This record gives sequence, C-alpha cells and structure tokens, in this order.
Amino acid sequence: MALSDELRDRILQSVDDGFDAQLAYTKKLVNLPSLRGQEHAIQDLVFREFQSRGMKVDRFDMDRDAIMAHPGGSPFSEHHSDAPIVVGIHHPRNETGRSLILNAHLDVVPEGPHEMWSDAPFSGEIKDGWMYGRGGADMKAGSAANLAALDALRRIGLQPAATVYVQSVVEEESTGNGSLMTYLRGYTADAALIPEPTGNRLVRANVGVLWFQLKVQGVPVHVSDMGEGANAIDAAYGVIGALRRLEEKWNAEKGDHPHFEDAGHPINLNIGKIAGGDWASSVPSWCTIDCRVSIYPGTSAADVAQQVRDCVADHARNDAFLANNPPEVVVNGFHAEGFVLEPGSDAEDVLGAAHEAAFGAPMEAAMLPGYIDTRVYALYNQIPALCYGPISRNVHGFDEAVDLESLRRITKTMTLFIAEWCGTEAVA
Amino acid sequence: MALSDELRDRILQSVDDGFDAQLAYTKKLVNLPSLRGQEHAIQDLVFREFQSRGMKVDRFDMDRDAIMAHPGGSPFSEHHSDAPIVVGIHHPRNETGRSLILNAHLDVVPEGPHEMWSDAPFSGEIKDGWMYGRGGADMKAGSAANLAALDALRRIGLQPAATVYVQSVVEEESTGNGSLMTYLRGYTADAALIPEPTGNRLVRANVGVLWFQLKVQGVPVHVSDMGEGANAIDAAYGVIGALRRLEEKWNAEKGDHPHFEDAGHPINLNIGKIAGGDWASSVPSWCTIDCRVSIYPGTSAADVAQQVRDCVADHARNDAFLANNPPEVVVNGFHAEGFVLEPGSDAEDVLGAAHEAAFGAPMEAAMLPGYIDTRVYALYNQIPALCYGPISRNVHGFDEAVDLESLRRITKTMTLFIAEWCGTEAVA
Repeated sequence: MALSDELRDRILQSVDDGFDAQLAYTKKLVNLPSLRGQEHAIQDLVFREFQSRGMKVDRFDMDRDAIMAHPGGSPFSEHHSDAPIVVGIHHPRNETGRSLILNAHLDVVPEGPHEMWSDAPFSGEIKDGWMYGRGGADMKAGSAANLAALDALRRIGLQPAATVYVQSVVEEESTGNGSLMTYLRGYTADAALIPEPTGNRLVRANVGVLWFQLKVQGVPVHVSDMGEGANAIDAAYGVIGALRRLEEKWNAEKGDHPHFEDAGHPINLNIGKIAGGDWASSVPSWCTIDCRVSIYPGTSAADVAQQVRDCVADHARNDAFLANNPPEVVVNGFHAEGFVLEPGSDAEDVLGAAHEAAFGAPMEAAMLPGYIDTRVYALYNQIPALCYGPISRNVHGFDEAVDLESLRRITKTMTLFIAEWCGTEAVA
Repeated sequence: MALSDELRDRILQSVDDGFDAQLAYTKKLVNLPSLRGQEHAIQDLVFREFQSRGMKVDRFDMDRDAIMAHPGGSPFSEHHSDAPIVVGIHHPRNETGRSLILNAHLDVVPEGPHEMWSDAPFSGEIKDGWMYGRGGADMKAGSAANLAALDALRRIGLQPAATVYVQSVVEEESTGNGSLMTYLRGYTADAALIPEPTGNRLVRANVGVLWFQLKVQGVPVHVSDMGEGANAIDAAYGVIGALRRLEEKWNAEKGDHPHFEDAGHPINLNIGKIAGGDWASSVPSWCTIDCRVSIYPGTSAADVAQQVRDCVADHARNDAFLANNPPEVVVNGFHAEGFVLEPGSDAEDVLGAAHEAAFGAPMEAAMLPGYIDTRVYALYNQIPALCYGPISRNVHGFDEAVDLESLRRITKTMTLFIAEWCGTEAVA
C-alpha cells in the first residue's frame, strides 16, 4: 500500500524539521572514541536514548560458545570487545504491518597518526556540508538516522504499525560477531536495513572477509653471516609475495561470479599491520603481519582460510628461512561469507520507491567490496537484507567525512520506507 | 722487557686461582638486565667495585653538545641512555710503564621473545663450559675480565706500574657515544684494549656502522581501490629492495678494501625492526623500518648516509605511493667510521706474546663485520686500539653464551699483557 502524497510530504518535511537535532546527536556519537573494546560508554548512551523513547531495551553480552559453534562466527582474540549489544524494541498497539530490523554498529577503526588529520580525529566538525571525524560516516550517521527516522514519524504523531528492532552492535569492524549475536539471541523480522555509507546506493552483492595473522618466528643466522631473505622480516615479505599471487588468481576468476565481472579488482588482500624485530643491529627473529582478504559470495571463509594456509606452506617449503621455521596462519577476526541480494524482493521495491521520492531519481544497486553485517540477515535470518546509506569520504582513512545533504535524503528514504513497510498508526 | 718465566707462571696461576670469583662476578653482571637506558644499577655496581679496589672513580654524564659537534658523534634519539659513564683510575706509586685504557660496555641488546630461549634470558647459568644469558658474551664477561686481570696481579702482590683507566660505558650497542665521551672528557693512554667476544682473535679491521630509520607516511588509496604497492607497508618493502641493491653494489667493491677482499659478504644491511599500520582492514598509512648497515674503513658515515638518502629518493620517484609521499631517512643511532689496526705496533706485539703464553699458539687477526668502540681510540685518540676477547655463541641472538675455557685463557693473556705493557710494582 503506497503512501499518500500528503503523508509522504509530511514525512519529508518532518525529517527536515528534525535534521538539526539529528546532526547534534550524530556529532555527540562521533565525539565518543568508540574504538574496539571501548564502546561501553556509547552503548550506554544508546541504551538511554532507546529508553527515553519508550522502547523496551534488551541489553546482552555476546555468547562466546554459541558464536564459536556457528559457521559464521569469528574467533575471539584477546582484543575482542566485551561491550554489550543493545536492542531497542518498538511494539505497535496493533501489529498490522511488516516487522523490521534497523541495525547499526558503533565500533570504529583506529584513527591512525593524529598529524594526518586536518582537525582532531573525533571532532564531528561540520565544514562545507560534510561532518568530519572517525566513525562519522562508518557508521554513526547511520546509527543516528535509525533513530531520526522513528523520531520523524513521531513528530507527526505516527509510529510503525509493526515491531521494529533498533539494534546497536559492536565488533562490526573486526568479526561481525555483534550482529551475529542478535540472530543467535533469536531476533528476526520481515526485513533488515543497515544504513552503512554506500553512496546512496543499495548493496546488491557483498564480499565475505577473512582476517588472518601471519606469524613468522624462528632462529635467524647471525647478522655477520646474513644474506638476503635470511631473517624474519625478509622472510615475511616473501610470504606476502606468495599471497599476492593467490590474490591475483582469485581476481582472474571474477568472471565466474555474478555482480563481480565488471569490478576492476574485486578481491583485495590488505596487509594492514606489521610488526617485527627488536633492535636495528639484531637479525629479526619474528615478524607478525595482520591481513584482511575479501571472499566472493558462495565461498566459505573456512575454504579461503585453507587456501591461505596451503599457499603459505607451499611457499615456506622453498624458502631458506621458512623451511626451518614454518610460519603460522592464525584466523583472528572476520571469518565471514559474502552474500547476494537477489533482485525482486518487496523490501527492495519499497525502498526503491522511497528513494525515488527522496532523491527524485531511481535507486542504483552496486557490489560492495568490504564487509557489512547485512550478511547475517541475508545468510542466517534469510530475510531481505538492505544495506543503503549516505555518501562518504575516506572511510578507514584520514578526514573521514559524511555528506550531510546525502544523509538528509537517506533519512527521508528510510522514514518513507519504514512508513510503507511497517505501516503507521497514531501514537497513543 | 719480557716477563720472566717465573712471573709469567705466577700470573697464569693467579688467574686460575681467581677464576671462580671472576665467574661469580660475571654472573652477577649478567643477572642485571641492562638494556638501553636501564644501565643505572649496573653502572652503580661497577662504581662500587672500582671504589672497593682503591681506585679513584670519575663518574660523568654524556655531553650532548660536545658529542653532536664531533664527526664521530651519533644522534641522540628519544631512546638514548642517560646512564653515567664510570672510569676507575689506577695510579702507580712510580709511573714507569706505558699507560693503558681497559674498556668495556655494559649495555645489552633486547633479549627478544622469551620463549625462544632455553633458559631465562638473564640467567647467567653455566652448562657444559658455557655461561648463558643476554650480554654475557657481549660483553659482561669482558667487563669482568678487565677487573679480574688487575685482581690477578694484586693476588700476587703486584699492580701496574703505569696509569690504567678502567672504563665502563653504555651506548655501545646503539651509538658508540659512551666511549666517544671518554675521549671528549680528555682520557687517553698509550694503548687501549677492549675484550669484546672476538673468538680469541685480534681485530685487524673493523667496519663502521650507520643506523637509520626509514619513515614512510602518507595518504594511501582506499582499500577497495588498492592494488599492489599502494600502501605504506608495500611501499616500504619496495624501498628495502632498492637498499638491497645498494648493499650488493657495496659488496661488489670489497676488492678495493684491504682486509675485506676475502670476506663473503662484508657489508650487511640489516632490516632489524619494522612497524606499520593500525588495523587489518585499513590501508596502512605509515611504516617505519629500523636499519643498520656496515661501512668500509675510510668511508665516512656522513657519506654513506647521503648514499642511502639518494638511493631512497631515486626509488621513491618511480613508485606510485612514494612519489606523492617521499619517505624520510632519519639517522637515529650509529654514525661511526670503521678502522684498520695497522700491523707492527708494540702493543700488538706484546699482546701477541701474551696470547702465545696463554694459548700455546700464535694469535690470529681478523676483520670484524660489526661495530666496536675500539674505533674511538683508533680514529680519535690515535693510539693502538686492540679488540681481543673470548669465543661466543649467538651474540644478539637466543641462548647467547660465552666459552668459559676461552674466557679463562683470554684473562690470562690480558693479565700478562698488562704486566708487560705497564710493568709491575709491588702493592703498597
């Protein structure tokens, strides 16, 4: 049942009316440096926001055993967050519409060297229509938009006529265990929407992601006898070369994967972090490399992990240092499959109509080459899982920013989508 | 004036008689983890040992300005030790012999991962004729031997008939500024002896050493757009490749350098330490590499530093990431020239005779491809600078150890050398 023109216009106006408050709340979220393991304060803030809106709130810890027993669960390293998951629950007076999950993560990746930022990394400053700060685009703007959309309905005396779960999770940047935990807790709905910064587009297909740590450790020869490749740092670099060849093999197979044929380089191996050695004048005995690689939908993380282990073992057998010191491959984070959002769902149709009303142009869909929690809802809840959000700049980089005009229109799309998907009823 | 057979035999016996006490003291030194900047306690222990033997003791800090103004001074990084230098001074009643500097350093390099050691890294345990522990060979055994040689003379009622400076320094493993400071303080003598673990051989020629840190930092492309070489860690490895080519050029020139022609690979570039990136799923924006490279005698450290800078700049111009983010080369430690001990000095002759008496075989001389403080005395004091000490295993590695039978004989050589070089007089 499409929205009336009158209701549509009231909703669009209501989002505009609430936008300053929405930005103030977004900035408040950005100001909190919610790095991995440091999301306690921000999750408590969200808990109070949910309560203050009259929602019931379910706050729970991650169940390590249940997560580890699930094929989509990622390992718990020493760095795993123990911040709680918070779910705000809206129940209508009359359950007449389709239920919905609105999800957002509040963990952010490290901000890196501060001197690389134009302003303080968690400033939330607005300049020329962009809000700057680590985590602003990815995805505190989305987290705030989830609430802002419900607030926009309430401002005109309406609320969803179906159950809505507003899920605030952590561990999206390292394992995906937070959203997986909402599934394991038993939450489900008729559709899920995650407003990650997708550039105003819907995610049609999405890679899985594997994290692994390569640990090279062993007894090197003495510095006075050393030649090239005879130490752990040189040896680790050799392993990277072998992994890059595996990466190229995977990219050469892109034609076999619908929605990936036209991507230039869909599978990326990122050598994200490295540490090795103790002293400039000692031959390094150890080197540890943190890697992230993407995975085509339909390929399991376990399979890719095995391919990585085989690649490393094959290389090591022919390396002077590594043959005697075989490197270890430790999966220490993401162990997640990708997904494809099959076209033609009602949820996508409703979102597309809402987008067109907000933007005056048809919604585009595209492949996203990074991890998103939508995979939990697509693969395990098996419901339409929509990832759709604003335009961003420099996500995971310096001067991360979100485009505020885009955010305004995305919030309009979201509010229209909720109103049509869930239906509306008068606030009591 | 050669020693009488009778005096020689009494000296050899006296070293044997004191050897248990010498080992106990050596173990005490090994037990103190005197890493860079953490040599305060051990230098105070040595101060008291000097005092208890009736020496005058001069304890002084390094003069940063004087060191930096000297061409052999190395930069003071944030890690530079502020432990004092301690010089014990023996004055004879009648100054009839030739004066001598006995030098040793007490700073040690990091022990690395403890699980790579068979025993605790600072145990000082003795097994099968070897004493184990970080810094035992390099060079606490030598430091203890300096005192043990004087103790051996005293045990038979003798003392050197010339001024002897026993210098206990730090910063030998990172800058060489400690021994340089003794020169700048004004200390000099007719010869210097440093019992580094040289395998019972005299050091004929010795490389200089340059430390530099390569700092790669800049804005990488986004992970979804990245290709090989487009991040700071990949880019840093590219620079290492360029530096390895420079290293090979230097090694190809070994025929031009007397005492280096027959060495397999006299110039070693060690990539000793690496750190970069913040997060597996973020493209790394920075990577820092700590390098050490050796230098032929006669080539200045400043010249080699310039060659390194030119090499890095040339490479950077042709690299996708580095052309926009030129790496920095920071000399942050050793900036030291090598030296050649020209054959034919009286000091070498006297040491050779002493060695033959202790070992029953002629002393051999060899090139040493690592830094030693002897360069200060050779290049700046311009006195015969003898580096000669025991057999070792795994210096800068795991299970570092010193051969105790070798140490006993080295101590005998040293005591005989002191007796003949300085002459002896009865203790008052």
